[in-house]
Amino acid sequence: MANDDTMKQVWKVPEPTLRRLPWYLAFIKLSKRKGEIFISSTQIAKEINVVPSQVAKDLSFVKVSGKTRVGYEIDALIEVLEDFLGFKSQHRAFIFGVGSLGGSLLQDSGLKQYGVDIVAGFDIRNELAGTVINGIPIFHIDQFPAKQKEYGATICIITVPVENAQEVTDRVIAGGIKALWNFTPFRIRVPDHIVVQNTSMYAHLAVMFNRLNSLNS
Amino acid sequence: MANDDTMKQVWKVPEPTLRRLPWYLAFIKLSKRKGEIFISSTQIAKEINVVPSQVAKDLSFVKVSGKTRVGYEIDALIEVLEDFLGFKSQHRAFIFGVGSLGGSLLQDSGLKQYGVDIVAGFDIRNELAGTVINGIPIFHIDQFPAKQKEYGATICIITVPVENAQEVTDRVIAGGIKALWNFTPFRIRVPDHIVVQNTSMYAHLAVMFNRLNSLNS
Repeated sequence: MANDDTMKQVWKVPEPTLRRLPWYLAFIKLSKRKGEIFISSTQIAKEINVVPSQVAKDLSFVKVSGKTRVGYEIDALIEVLEDFLGFKSQHRAFIFGVGSLGGSLLQDSGLKQYGVDIVAGFDIRNELAGTVINGIPIFHIDQFPAKQKEYGATICIITVPVENAQEVTDRVIAGGIKALWNFTPFRIRVPDHIVVQNTSMYAHLAVMFNRLNSLNS
Repeated sequence: MANDDTMKQVWKVPEPTLRRLPWYLAFIKLSKRKGEIFISSTQIAKEINVVPSQVAKDLSFVKVSGKTRVGYEIDALIEVLEDFLGFKSQHRAFIFGVGSLGGSLLQDSGLKQYGVDIVAGFDIRNELAGTVINGIPIFHIDQFPAKQKEYGATICIITVPVENAQEVTDRVIAGGIKALWNFTPFRIRVPDHIVVQNTSMYAHLAVMFNRLNSLNS
């Protein structure tokens, strides 16, 4: 089973670093818009609420070097960070489950700017096959092997009902998918060489509701 | 600044517990569909890949007691868990930023089943004011104070561009919003009594791309 960093494999870049770098990138881009030319670890640290040594350590994984006193050149840092994070290359993705959430992710053209190119959607419902959402064709899931040969997708976004999450996972892995972006609240099981990221919107809601209740009580 | 569990306040229920409970709930509901009547911590633990003592500890925060040998009664456990997690009450929410992601979240009726009732969307673009998406009215952000009086929303979902994230945050907090669900890659700053959850889709992508590249190299 491979969920996030529970994978046995030792990764070169720690997951917390990879999760912080996009925050740095967002702030650096904002500074560029404000007309800044250079930025220091200390400035980033202050803004993100992380200690400066952590920012420097995180940035040490990225091949970029700062200058004493002035810091990093913003233009170069943005380019290197976007490249390092994989946002500049397009990764072909399928969406499995064109329900409420799946359908709404198909509408989100913003994902393309972050390197996810959704090329097709799949659903078990016959009436959806042959339709097009936001320019993206929807197929019946039985067409997956043929369409995978055609598109050669790397990533599968899982937005099926909980009871189908594992079955779909097994199926797409057998078909050559290398990474699963799981939006269901189900903990899918995958072999060690498959990448999984769980975006647990409901888990975030559970935390939010609990904190709200605690404040009220 | 209050991001997740960096808040100074000591919460009764730890965030990792609150994040795991929805996974347990999803698996328990699946077991119910399969006709099961009882479920044990060991069964949940095996499925979720957590040690049984952790499952028992997590469930100890929820007011439910299991029976020796047979475990928890599934129907009762689902009801108590859904209630504990706040999924059964409706929390009124606004969406700020009706762009690609904001617009797609407005389409996601699934959120309502998890306790989020999106009652209105706000955007800076005049041409969006007066439109309706999935039955939800969209207003110009200048109408926020008046609409907040009318709806009394508790939660604000932030899907604005990075450069507006902090400004919108400050504005909605001043208007009485208690919790922010931040989908931007920007680390918003809030006072201690305000709840923040960050759903960092781009951070998840960064981890996924890096792991994919590591596997290929």
